[in-house]
Amino acid sequence: MKIETLRWTNNKLEMIDQRILPASFKYLSYDSAASIAEGIRSMVVRGAPAIGVAAAYGVALEALRQQASAEFNAGMEAGFKVLATSRPTAVNLFWALQRMREVWQGVATQAPQQVAQRLLAEAQEIHAEDIRINKAMGAFGAELLPDGARVLTHCNAGALATAGWGTALGVFRSVVEAGKKISVIADETRPFLQGARLTAWEMVQENIPVTLITDNMAGHLMAHDEIDAVVVGTDRVAANGDVANKIGTYMVAVLAQRHHIPFYVACPLSTIDMNIASSADIPIEERSPDEVKGFRDCHWAAEGVQIRNPAFDVTPAELVSALITEKGVIHRPDRDKLRALFG
Amino acid sequence: MKIETLRWTNNKLEMIDQRILPASFKYLSYDSAASIAEGIRSMVVRGAPAIGVAAAYGVALEALRQQASAEFNAGMEAGFKVLATSRPTAVNLFWALQRMREVWQGVATQAPQQVAQRLLAEAQEIHAEDIRINKAMGAFGAELLPDGARVLTHCNAGALATAGWGTALGVFRSVVEAGKKISVIADETRPFLQGARLTAWEMVQENIPVTLITDNMAGHLMAHDEIDAVVVGTDRVAANGDVANKIGTYMVAVLAQRHHIPFYVACPLSTIDMNIASSADIPIEERSPDEVKGFRDCHWAAEGVQIRNPAFDVTPAELVSALITEKGVIHRPDRDKLRALFG
Repeated sequence: MKIETLRWTNNKLEMIDQRILPASFKYLSYDSAASIAEGIRSMVVRGAPAIGVAAAYGVALEALRQQASAEFNAGMEAGFKVLATSRPTAVNLFWALQRMREVWQGVATQAPQQVAQRLLAEAQEIHAEDIRINKAMGAFGAELLPDGARVLTHCNAGALATAGWGTALGVFRSVVEAGKKISVIADETRPFLQGARLTAWEMVQENIPVTLITDNMAGHLMAHDEIDAVVVGTDRVAANGDVANKIGTYMVAVLAQRHHIPFYVACPLSTIDMNIASSADIPIEERSPDEVKGFRDCHWAAEGVQIRNPAFDVTPAELVSALITEKGVIHRPDRDKLRALFG
Repeated sequence: MKIETLRWTNNKLEMIDQRILPASFKYLSYDSAASIAEGIRSMVVRGAPAIGVAAAYGVALEALRQQASAEFNAGMEAGFKVLATSRPTAVNLFWALQRMREVWQGVATQAPQQVAQRLLAEAQEIHAEDIRINKAMGAFGAELLPDGARVLTHCNAGALATAGWGTALGVFRSVVEAGKKISVIADETRPFLQGARLTAWEMVQENIPVTLITDNMAGHLMAHDEIDAVVVGTDRVAANGDVANKIGTYMVAVLAQRHHIPFYVACPLSTIDMNIASSADIPIEERSPDEVKGFRDCHWAAEGVQIRNPAFDVTPAELVSALITEKGVIHRPDRDKLRALFG
């Protein structure tokens, strides 16, 4: 089954509502930068690459919405602003907005209608590029995993986190495409349960064997030699190779090192932030306490308890066996190797 | 508020139904070994020491139930058997059954009515002892924690896991009793959510500051210097100091070592199994997949996914800074130190 996380239909962007998967599969429709920003904030769409693509369409949608307006430029600036403040951690958001701004500046002298068409074309190119990049990463990553590997992943770095195919789950799809066997162990990934709801669902769709565990079980499985490798996605990689990803990734990386299990990060170049020297400068989003009190309408936490809800954590480069990019595999990433990647 | 996890009323044992806390606070009534065994299996009562006390009452209840029976001895043997097969990991269950059996053998020549009264007296003594032991452990443990310590705990090793007071949470109560400040960080502890439901509830009752996190957040907090110590309970300690406890404890211990945070285990002597050389021989219970698919009536896991649900894991002795027992604190536990404890 081909999963279209985002699709352009009748001059609107439609996105799968990932808050209600897998119980319900439904598209929501978006026609402005503000509505896209709200879709990103509320996690209708999530996953760094998918957020980047959605933001690019948000800029195009705003241009189409404002093309008859006398205040076109001011309206566009407002659109960029609302999108930039939707979520702080995933760098692909800012990467996509910067790319769209540069395209806009390149045609700023043209009529708004032409600017809007050019921005829509660019968003569609970013969309198509993301899938091509994922497949290139998948092919490189597939070479790292032996036939029959039992691979742990955390959160959802799948088709639903991208324009399709996926980063970490894209590697798994490419392993199967290469004719090798794989079995996936999925952390449920509290509080939003991307592993139990999204990764498990994607793998079941693909008939890839998948086993669900709670986030506190990975160490036990590693200690019993039930995991051969870890592959995760990332929301932002610093210039020194530090990796920000879904909360809990760091604990998995530390356990993997203790058990001599390779820890791989699937990471398009758009997720590497060369402007940030180390993870110390990566903003970590703290989300609503309600997410931790329960799930959806199910509340179980004791009344009166305080709550912390950091959405991401940082895995230092020393724990990363390799970054899997569309330009190849970067073993033991460091500042020099990342600089060379962009050289 | 005094929490009476188990109470003897009108020749029946009443136990708080821990499956429905904190939304509902309700006692269920038990009058036989088989019903107590089912209460243990279904986790109406849980926590190694509380399971031991419940099992002792189960033997007494069976004696009272069978005291007029011509098949008294056979009935008692059946009662011991059903209790022994209720849950496999917590050794306190087998410790309590053995102690009750020895008492029974000591009065085997007496009339069943007298045997039943003697067994009831012994169950009540085990009950009272558990609270005395917890308070002794608490006093020793409190000396390990500095004023104002921010302490992480996993699962619920509280009043609800014992006859009252608690092992790990008993240490926290004793810290407060000693006039020191403490703030508790509670892992929610999927899948049964003992941390979010029971530990958070107990600490709120005591007005001890408590912050709830999901099980994948502890590493992030440790990396940001927000945790000063870890205190947990245990279901069985092997003769070499290896610690079996709720699934996820091992991951916390590995992260604590990486961040040079002391990892303490509150452990009555009844939880130390000198008959087992190392954790390799501790049976790890695997519970129903339904617990991982969601919680209670809330189901979120994708259909068709396989599930693992080990209820416990093992923390090797090398990761244990100290065992807190009613006889004192055993730093860096090993075979010799544990043997000396029983010498």
